[in-house]
Amino acid sequence: MSFIPRIYLDPHEFEALASNKDYAIPASTAHYLGTVLRLKASEKVVFFNERDGEWECEISYIAKNKGTIQTTKQLRLSITPLGPTLVFAPLKRDATDLAIRMATELGVKTIQPVKTLRTNTVKIKEERFRSITIEAAEQSNRLTIPEIKPIVSLFDFCSSWPKDKTLWIAVERCAEYHIEPNSTEKCRGDDGILIGPEGGFDSSEIKNLLLYDFVRPLSLGNLILKAETAIVAGLSLFSQHVRA
Amino acid sequence: MSFIPRIYLDPHEFEALASNKDYAIPASTAHYLGTVLRLKASEKVVFFNERDGEWECEISYIAKNKGTIQTTKQLRLSITPLGPTLVFAPLKRDATDLAIRMATELGVKTIQPVKTLRTNTVKIKEERFRSITIEAAEQSNRLTIPEIKPIVSLFDFCSSWPKDKTLWIAVERCAEYHIEPNSTEKCRGDDGILIGPEGGFDSSEIKNLLLYDFVRPLSLGNLILKAETAIVAGLSLFSQHVRA
Repeated sequence: MSFIPRIYLDPHEFEALASNKDYAIPASTAHYLGTVLRLKASEKVVFFNERDGEWECEISYIAKNKGTIQTTKQLRLSITPLGPTLVFAPLKRDATDLAIRMATELGVKTIQPVKTLRTNTVKIKEERFRSITIEAAEQSNRLTIPEIKPIVSLFDFCSSWPKDKTLWIAVERCAEYHIEPNSTEKCRGDDGILIGPEGGFDSSEIKNLLLYDFVRPLSLGNLILKAETAIVAGLSLFSQHVRA
Repeated sequence: MSFIPRIYLDPHEFEALASNKDYAIPASTAHYLGTVLRLKASEKVVFFNERDGEWECEISYIAKNKGTIQTTKQLRLSITPLGPTLVFAPLKRDATDLAIRMATELGVKTIQPVKTLRTNTVKIKEERFRSITIEAAEQSNRLTIPEIKPIVSLFDFCSSWPKDKTLWIAVERCAEYHIEPNSTEKCRGDDGILIGPEGGFDSSEIKNLLLYDFVRPLSLGNLILKAETAIVAGLSLFSQHVRA
């Protein structure tokens, strides 16, 4: 099986895809397909987004910075993304990039950065994060791109969280807070998962979080995980229980 | 709570720790504690390893490249590590480093690199890997260090795998192989998890793996995970089921 490139087309910048129609593709996409991947006319490309689903297309014409394609068949219909909301305190640059990439692979619908007492980094490079999510979606066979929300303070976020959805918080050393961690077995696809910053939540934050009716503690084991490991571990448990 | 450094002492290079005894510490450890962390006499350090458990100690004397400590109390007894065996095909350098670090945080007992048909990298830098596992064990509150085995071919590894332990293999697109993935609910602490290389197993490898009675397929969901994400996702599911 030869490799067929899989490319996200931003639905805000591209008209809806329909059967057997010709489309001019964006200059950057033409550059990538023609110059980087060295594709030629009549070769196949798959385009996708959350609005149009996934389409197999054939290159009609490709030049340095322009090209046209023709849709040949729809491979998947569009879907309404379900996946959880990942709520996390931004980490150092590499760790945040990694967390966003892996969270996209693991199916998160929404990425909500929050500022906690021990959050050092509050600069959110939305364009950079978005390009990481697009690349991860292209590689992982996702149809949708996670939405990246602007950073807000932890408790402003909690105030606006819908009361009928559970927010699971990963708590290290549950025993110190006299809490019994819940199992993710009761989690639903549109719940949220909150992972604290490097160094953990401040104990006042844990106590205040536990006052909310929609908050449930979640244990990720006895070992102390780095924040990015905790994000991947939490999302893995979550997605398995939603699948099951 | 002030930060108390937590340091691994290689039991092959250091005598057994006992109550209220004085020990000369290795030059590199003295350098780290005295010069890097700027600790002084009477400050606390925690030392641990799989043979001695975990000990709170007090620095008696510290200079540029030498120092002595006194054990004050044993915090944890030694344990026999249980965690799973991670069997994986080496990836690019950064991805392998990341996988080894996260696998240590998630409690693996043994790391077994294997060569598969699509494995490009077969150089295993054992010293480098070992220092990654030690650092991750120090940070994650582990008592033990994962053992790193020399690389072997995938099927040589399978031939030597004990027949009474399950080897879970993460299979993408289970439907293509007409297999029904198993749930990890039946996994035991000393099972193994096998994660394929970037680009996945060759289909002949999957078919041959499934001939072994001890092999069970495991699904990590519908999305295509990068190998390092699959390692973390698989180990997370595994450790949660072993805990439950």
